[in-house]
Amino acid sequence: MDVTNMKQQAEALVAQMTLEEAASQLLHQSPAIERLGVQEYNWWSEALHGVARAGRATVFPQAIGMAAAFDPAFLQTEAEAIATEARAKYNAAVKYGDRDIYKGLTYWSPNINIFRDPRWGRGHETYGEDPYLTTTLGNAFIRGLQGDTTSGNYMKIAACAKHFAVHSGPEKLRHEFDAQATEKDLQETYLPAFESAVKDAGVESVMGAYNRTNGEPCCAHERLLVQILRGEWGFDGHVVSDCWAIKDIHKNHHYTNTPEESAAIAVKRGCDLNCGCTFEALLDAHRQGLISEEEIRKAAVHVFTTRFKLGEFAKDCPYDEISYDVVGSKEHRALALQAARESMVLLSNDGSLPLKLEQLHTIAVIGPNAYSQKALYGNYNGFSDHWITNLDGIREAVGDRARILYSQGSDIVKDKEDPLAKCGKYYSEAKICADLADVVILCVGLDGDLEGEEGDTGNAFASGDKIDLLLPKTQRQLIEEVLGIGKPTVIVVNAGSALDLSAYEDRAAAILQAWYPGECGGEALAEILFGKVSPSGKLPLTFYHNTDPLPEFTDYHMKGRTYKFFEGTPWRAFGFGLSYTTFAYRDLQVKEREDGALDLSVTVQNTGAYDADEVTQVYLSYDGEAFEKPIRKLVGFVRTSLAKGEEQQLQLRIAKRELLSVLEDGSKTILPGTYRLSVGSSQPDEKSMALMHSVPQEQTFSLS
Amino acid sequence: MDVTNMKQQAEALVAQMTLEEAASQLLHQSPAIERLGVQEYNWWSEALHGVARAGRATVFPQAIGMAAAFDPAFLQTEAEAIATEARAKYNAAVKYGDRDIYKGLTYWSPNINIFRDPRWGRGHETYGEDPYLTTTLGNAFIRGLQGDTTSGNYMKIAACAKHFAVHSGPEKLRHEFDAQATEKDLQETYLPAFESAVKDAGVESVMGAYNRTNGEPCCAHERLLVQILRGEWGFDGHVVSDCWAIKDIHKNHHYTNTPEESAAIAVKRGCDLNCGCTFEALLDAHRQGLISEEEIRKAAVHVFTTRFKLGEFAKDCPYDEISYDVVGSKEHRALALQAARESMVLLSNDGSLPLKLEQLHTIAVIGPNAYSQKALYGNYNGFSDHWITNLDGIREAVGDRARILYSQGSDIVKDKEDPLAKCGKYYSEAKICADLADVVILCVGLDGDLEGEEGDTGNAFASGDKIDLLLPKTQRQLIEEVLGIGKPTVIVVNAGSALDLSAYEDRAAAILQAWYPGECGGEALAEILFGKVSPSGKLPLTFYHNTDPLPEFTDYHMKGRTYKFFEGTPWRAFGFGLSYTTFAYRDLQVKEREDGALDLSVTVQNTGAYDADEVTQVYLSYDGEAFEKPIRKLVGFVRTSLAKGEEQQLQLRIAKRELLSVLEDGSKTILPGTYRLSVGSSQPDEKSMALMHSVPQEQTFSLS
Repeated sequence: MDVTNMKQQAEALVAQMTLEEAASQLLHQSPAIERLGVQEYNWWSEALHGVARAGRATVFPQAIGMAAAFDPAFLQTEAEAIATEARAKYNAAVKYGDRDIYKGLTYWSPNINIFRDPRWGRGHETYGEDPYLTTTLGNAFIRGLQGDTTSGNYMKIAACAKHFAVHSGPEKLRHEFDAQATEKDLQETYLPAFESAVKDAGVESVMGAYNRTNGEPCCAHERLLVQILRGEWGFDGHVVSDCWAIKDIHKNHHYTNTPEESAAIAVKRGCDLNCGCTFEALLDAHRQGLISEEEIRKAAVHVFTTRFKLGEFAKDCPYDEISYDVVGSKEHRALALQAARESMVLLSNDGSLPLKLEQLHTIAVIGPNAYSQKALYGNYNGFSDHWITNLDGIREAVGDRARILYSQGSDIVKDKEDPLAKCGKYYSEAKICADLADVVILCVGLDGDLEGEEGDTGNAFASGDKIDLLLPKTQRQLIEEVLGIGKPTVIVVNAGSALDLSAYEDRAAAILQAWYPGECGGEALAEILFGKVSPSGKLPLTFYHNTDPLPEFTDYHMKGRTYKFFEGTPWRAFGFGLSYTTFAYRDLQVKEREDGALDLSVTVQNTGAYDADEVTQVYLSYDGEAFEKPIRKLVGFVRTSLAKGEEQQLQLRIAKRELLSVLEDGSKTILPGTYRLSVGSSQPDEKSMALMHSVPQEQTFSLS
Repeated sequence: MDVTNMKQQAEALVAQMTLEEAASQLLHQSPAIERLGVQEYNWWSEALHGVARAGRATVFPQAIGMAAAFDPAFLQTEAEAIATEARAKYNAAVKYGDRDIYKGLTYWSPNINIFRDPRWGRGHETYGEDPYLTTTLGNAFIRGLQGDTTSGNYMKIAACAKHFAVHSGPEKLRHEFDAQATEKDLQETYLPAFESAVKDAGVESVMGAYNRTNGEPCCAHERLLVQILRGEWGFDGHVVSDCWAIKDIHKNHHYTNTPEESAAIAVKRGCDLNCGCTFEALLDAHRQGLISEEEIRKAAVHVFTTRFKLGEFAKDCPYDEISYDVVGSKEHRALALQAARESMVLLSNDGSLPLKLEQLHTIAVIGPNAYSQKALYGNYNGFSDHWITNLDGIREAVGDRARILYSQGSDIVKDKEDPLAKCGKYYSEAKICADLADVVILCVGLDGDLEGEEGDTGNAFASGDKIDLLLPKTQRQLIEEVLGIGKPTVIVVNAGSALDLSAYEDRAAAILQAWYPGECGGEALAEILFGKVSPSGKLPLTFYHNTDPLPEFTDYHMKGRTYKFFEGTPWRAFGFGLSYTTFAYRDLQVKEREDGALDLSVTVQNTGAYDADEVTQVYLSYDGEAFEKPIRKLVGFVRTSLAKGEEQQLQLRIAKRELLSVLEDGSKTILPGTYRLSVGSSQPDEKSMALMHSVPQEQTFSLS
């Protein structure tokens, strides 16, 4: 794609517009300009894990689950499928003149914020707590959505990196909050994924966050938007505000006094597009001398460049030919299943898993998330035409070989399902099912109504956030009631964030974190429960015991947060995840390249009894003294499929930038001294992998 | 069962109680009396079409669908299965000390009110508009629930005939309304099903309605409860109030002034048990001299007689042995499927049905009820562990033989699915699906949130009732959008009442009324759509074009209502329902018996190309003059399975009481003169069967 040419075409088009017309195009619901052949266009579409809110679309696991898969190549393939469906749906809608919300070509995904605190309700939209993992996966997702835009190709759909920058709750305060981030945290934690999205993945759009960061509203942030994004990083796409965030600038941040001032300062500082309607004040702002015509036209050129890149005004865009048949196709559904398989994380196992179906006569499937479609889709989701709930998947896998007894067990959050009941309605049902069963599969957790976005839902906690890491009380009681029956019990958790399940560790046969696994989630679950697939997901975030040792939720210092800086012993560490098999590592070799990168090779062997995937992780730690240095940090990983007995020599390259330390002032440098590289993954006997990642292969080396 | 003995035991037990203790047992949530070995007991359980509101239970089609099946023998079998599950669930709950609501042995089903007006939101709980059909099915259901109580058997569970008497909306007014019923309508329409439930089926309990009837509150109705129920009919079970209906007596009916007066008059007039808490005032009422101790004790004896009949205090009750395994068993599920098959009514067919799967490449399944579990269960429902929605059933039946494209099409009632959208979100998706398909299956209708009970739901109409017979606007637009694409379109309607679909008759390939068909509904639907099963259900109520020619909703005169008295031409008549095959009738013979009954024989042959069930209906009409005489009335029916080509000689007995005419004063007599008996059912070319039932076989005879 010849971007220069696209920009020139956009300039030529905008030049023909009146100022009123140009300004009208800076709202997410942009009207038609018929005399110029410009169609009505709604900029707002979502595709966090499949085309969202626009009817039928293949629903992949929620982002946090895809992070647990540690598989950027697969994620890119998945994103390509999402983009194909998006185009197909766009083509179909346009055919019938439907240019409404959620049906455009500009998708406000991915969410590459850092899940710095386990209380954040929107954490499950992200790729977890680690900047390197977030960067790698964010880029893969962006590349998949946007397609190959080199050599003259149109952009498939436009991705959007959000929310720029330093944004992760509390949801309740987001419209008025000022996130205070140190220079070190900015450069080390909050900005890298955005920088790489712009510089490496060429993301077409960036969304400004609701909150202020270090005093300035993110959608009118001189340093973030002007100096860093467009200046240092050379971003040439368009910036969109979070929805109705421009209004927050005067109304909640009190950074300006009027809508005109807010609109003007946002556009002047590089926010081109307003999700919301405050930019309706732009013309008045211009009359008041707050903004020049040139600045308004410049923003219009930015947004129209995107539309030209997407081929909207072309007749030769090959994506216009994508037929609706691809939506929810067998191939895409197979990807959703594979994604779910890779995402699930086995947190504990006393050897009961995999279940031996031939030894089971009766299986109890219990819990509010057992037969819940909502437990599959998280938030920002599309709708499947064939949800496979946990119960569905188990039923299908079991067939006639065992009897299944189901009980909802409890509501997901309400203490009583019925105001007339004296207590939880289903506890006795759950208990009789457990009593009659050989094994219990107890499906608990949360859903997108309980953890999510401010204002979206009526959750029982705090505007979408969690107040602690406990399951809702009614579910805790359910677990006690069921465990009290004394049957082997596998706890399956559908949730998008860390919950403290340590109380059940010694009493449950196994605990499996299944996230919000998308439309085939129950099928993947059954494959894992019954041993068709060995679990291979790894935690993309720390599972703490509770929030006591953590800083305040509102504190954006990274000190004491995430596996990189948390000094305590978590319940389960970042990167943790059990397998049915065992892996052995040997022959670790590290070579320094001329460009400063490291080439690493190691041999991994599947030494157990099951074919399985392994996620080999490489952590770097610095033996010297440094200001708030990370305990360890992820610098590389690779997912490998290994049949039992099979071995493979892995080659990984650690880029030089991963070796840099971030100093107090935010500058990045190689600190001289000894470093330790740890390579491996969690093994069945290493439950908590705390502090130093416990791995079979380590090597130290020196940098200067 | 030796009822006398049960009553004596109850008397002996109540005699040991203090007055306070006896009075405490007249509330639906009855406390334990430990010193007498009386456990806590909650009287409130529901089982309209399966054990309801108590977790997992087999969910059969809603009552109105079972009415359409015209199959009392099957309904009794179904009710036996329901009672088996109820006992199993009771046994399990009691094992864990759970004696909470919905887990007892006293079930407040069936609803044998007459569905006299199509606007009534609770009409789908009933067996339709005809007293004979209602009587026949109500009795079958009661017998199935209660089991064989002859020869010393305990009662399986106690049924309850509700709501006594003259109760059918409006929901909004039910707590203050006075239903005015003539003597003729009482005897001809409103009371027969209750009378027969008491006298023929031995129903254990009767529930008083919320409203007044002819001036007196039904739960304290001298004539209904004292004179008719206990007097004329000899009812010896217990009477329960509708929930919080006793409070209405003073608060809304202003028939009394205080809770004490309401409680006292209700008990004095035979209402033994209070669903609610107003009977807490009974002791004060006694102190105030409003009611005697003897009257309170008498009510207690009534309710304890029921508990003794149920074997609660016995050690030899065989039902105590029923294991939880029966709940949702394969056998019960097969019954649910069979019930759904029998219930569905084919309303029009241009020959497109059954669909020829081998000729189809792509099938569009569209509509808010296509993938809706709620569309399966109506209200007063249990929960399945395997709902087969319409889409599920079609997907399963089609397998890999055709591609299915699904769109929700529209919300079930909201004009816009999303406040941010400009219009219905799914219309264009529905259109592209239709456009790509060879055939469209368009699933519309209502659900239990839209038609139901006052206060239960936030429906868009009127407190659960309908304001007209139209589908919600958003669905009407969806139908137009889809029909506009021009593909053969089968309209499937999940709803529990008459909707006017005449506007689509000439443009849709077929219209199928599927009711709320229970947990296997989609499987039965697919069997019918693809010709594995021929539709055989018949309308248990008139489908009018609209409500214009009907009396006011609040008018309880039967004149002008139901097929018996409606002089106009309805869209589809009572008893109507198409088949894939044709039937021929011959050799009708009628013989008068000594007891005044008629013995009727007729030969029916399946003359078409499909194996099918036929519902042979017998209507009686009187050629003479009489006050408000019915145009025709159902006096007999039988369902028969006939392979193609097969013929069978049917024997039906018409009881003498069906030949009686009800005079203006409510008295019943044989009017001398000529009568016409019409035998048959609707044929594919007889769409409306108006006025005189169009049938192949008629015979006149004279009575004197």
